[in-house]
Amino acid sequence: MQTIRVALDERSYPIHIGAGLIERIDLLAPLLPQRRVMIVSNTVVAPLYLDRVVRAFERAGIEALSVVLPDGEDHKDWPTLNLIFDALLRHRCDRKTTLIALGGGVIGDITGFAAAAFMRGVPFVQMPTTLLAQVDSSVGGKTGINHPLGKNMIGAFHQPIAVLADIDTFSTLPDRELKAGIAEIIKHGAIRDADYFQWLEANIERLLARDAEALIHAIKRSVEIKAEVVALDERESGLRAVLNFGHTFGHAIEAGLGFGTWLHGEAVGAGMVMAADLSRRLGLIDAAARERVRELIARAGLPAAGPALGFERYLELMSVDKKNESGRLRFVLLRAIGDAFVHDSVDRDALRAIVDACTNSVN
Amino acid sequence: MQTIRVALDERSYPIHIGAGLIERIDLLAPLLPQRRVMIVSNTVVAPLYLDRVVRAFERAGIEALSVVLPDGEDHKDWPTLNLIFDALLRHRCDRKTTLIALGGGVIGDITGFAAAAFMRGVPFVQMPTTLLAQVDSSVGGKTGINHPLGKNMIGAFHQPIAVLADIDTFSTLPDRELKAGIAEIIKHGAIRDADYFQWLEANIERLLARDAEALIHAIKRSVEIKAEVVALDERESGLRAVLNFGHTFGHAIEAGLGFGTWLHGEAVGAGMVMAADLSRRLGLIDAAARERVRELIARAGLPAAGPALGFERYLELMSVDKKNESGRLRFVLLRAIGDAFVHDSVDRDALRAIVDACTNSVN
Repeated sequence: MQTIRVALDERSYPIHIGAGLIERIDLLAPLLPQRRVMIVSNTVVAPLYLDRVVRAFERAGIEALSVVLPDGEDHKDWPTLNLIFDALLRHRCDRKTTLIALGGGVIGDITGFAAAAFMRGVPFVQMPTTLLAQVDSSVGGKTGINHPLGKNMIGAFHQPIAVLADIDTFSTLPDRELKAGIAEIIKHGAIRDADYFQWLEANIERLLARDAEALIHAIKRSVEIKAEVVALDERESGLRAVLNFGHTFGHAIEAGLGFGTWLHGEAVGAGMVMAADLSRRLGLIDAAARERVRELIARAGLPAAGPALGFERYLELMSVDKKNESGRLRFVLLRAIGDAFVHDSVDRDALRAIVDACTNSVN
Repeated sequence: MQTIRVALDERSYPIHIGAGLIERIDLLAPLLPQRRVMIVSNTVVAPLYLDRVVRAFERAGIEALSVVLPDGEDHKDWPTLNLIFDALLRHRCDRKTTLIALGGGVIGDITGFAAAAFMRGVPFVQMPTTLLAQVDSSVGGKTGINHPLGKNMIGAFHQPIAVLADIDTFSTLPDRELKAGIAEIIKHGAIRDADYFQWLEANIERLLARDAEALIHAIKRSVEIKAEVVALDERESGLRAVLNFGHTFGHAIEAGLGFGTWLHGEAVGAGMVMAADLSRRLGLIDAAARERVRELIARAGLPAAGPALGFERYLELMSVDKKNESGRLRFVLLRAIGDAFVHDSVDRDALRAIVDACTNSVN
């Protein structure tokens, strides 16, 4: 087991990475303000892991209630969130009851927001069961739900008290979801660590083959990079925005196709190719660097081009992105592999050129 | 105009109290991160004041969008909250758009929560138009909505960037609402300032007659007391709980009768009499002190007894109160007038006695 500590002053917390962790309640027990928890899971993950987690809590003398939500991004909404509030109130939970998010990124985001908003804030623990959630949504405290007019539009910053990233849960993870997680791993190398990006180029096949050692290394390094960036800028006023590399295009793709059609990681994969191409067109990186990004994403089995939504539609979808300020589109661009920055005055023609070049001509 | 500054480290903010303030946009303009605001009001307040506020913003060169919500505590819910999100997204507002809460406590709470959750947090300003909102809900950063199983169960701590408490808005405030605000004013004296309580005993008729000087003094002193308590304990871990004097019984009354039947301040009025009586039965204060509380509440035209819901129903309603911890009921009791504390091991028989004694025999 490896442990990273995310340093956020009074609200710092540990991320444990390794095998068999969803039953390691000894890692959580000292942190719980009450010997009672509410586990939030979904209809896909609960049949696989919920009983084991409940029994592990009970062996530790901790009462474990649970609520099972419908699965999927299209249930990341208010009615589903409200199922958690209903369960908490029905069981007379109070401000010291800890919520446990057992599932992927949607479960983590919705449970985190439930924890932020229930009685104006209760503790929560992440037990992410997808690679994406382990390297991305379990770090940084972003929580929330979608609105029909935009993804993650309603939410809060709320840090977990601990994260247990159990790689054994990947045994039940579909290949497509594994690859979606690898997209965020590639992102971490691309924005901040050229050596790590190079390591990924050398080891992408080991990750795809679910090699435990390679996975633990990649999760640890990705979590370190994200934790480092978040600690420097918890509220996303500046630096943290580089974590959105590929996301301006990616969110437009997800919204344009309808949430859930492409996985978030798939949309970010294509989005990173588009952002690298935009960086190239603006003369920030050379064609070889752009090609390294495209190639690694393609080797990871991720889409290396966006769907053909048309330029105007991309523009419309990107203009509601909450990372924008005062109506200007913001993009994260590369100065080099391993060196990203935020740019908010991209020329419309350059944008049209890359949307035309980096999207498939047929849907 | 009087100005109090609520000191909360980086998040401190000014509360201005006086006449004609809803048009004093000069007090706000330097604080706005963008020359665009979204005013949230309701169907009662908007016809009276919205146009004046919109025009005042426009004169200052600030674009003022608005959304008008249905009025009342029974609309302090998700569908109504969502009308704010819909308006913000339809107008492509971003993280720098400031929300302006123009209305009473419900508008303040729901707008504050919208500001806390929209894009994970945008600025907001309170323009409270009721006495209750000016002395209570505009100070302390508590925001939220109700759940069918409990009041204010879903919310956030989110501080406004400024509060404009305009006493001219009382010209349209019904007497019943004025009295409900006086309930919280009496509470502030009872829990922390015996001299202020005595001033209220001497000046209660001036407040009821809407004497401007008396109102400004009372609002200022109440805001000072609340701000002092909140600054010492922003997240309500200890001291701040004394602000809930009368609220454990009060919330039970509101929930038991159905939210909106009694005004919050009316329920708190009766709740304070019950809490004072409980303090007396536990030997903490003498009968004379208990009687001073009851009498001042009665002189303010507030109910000095709770409705006859029956002991078991009170117990059930109080046990879902979010101020409870680990299943124990918490009450704020008096050691003396001006000196409140939190007690969480109240004897069941004492509780039954005061519920029997302090509730009307007929509904």
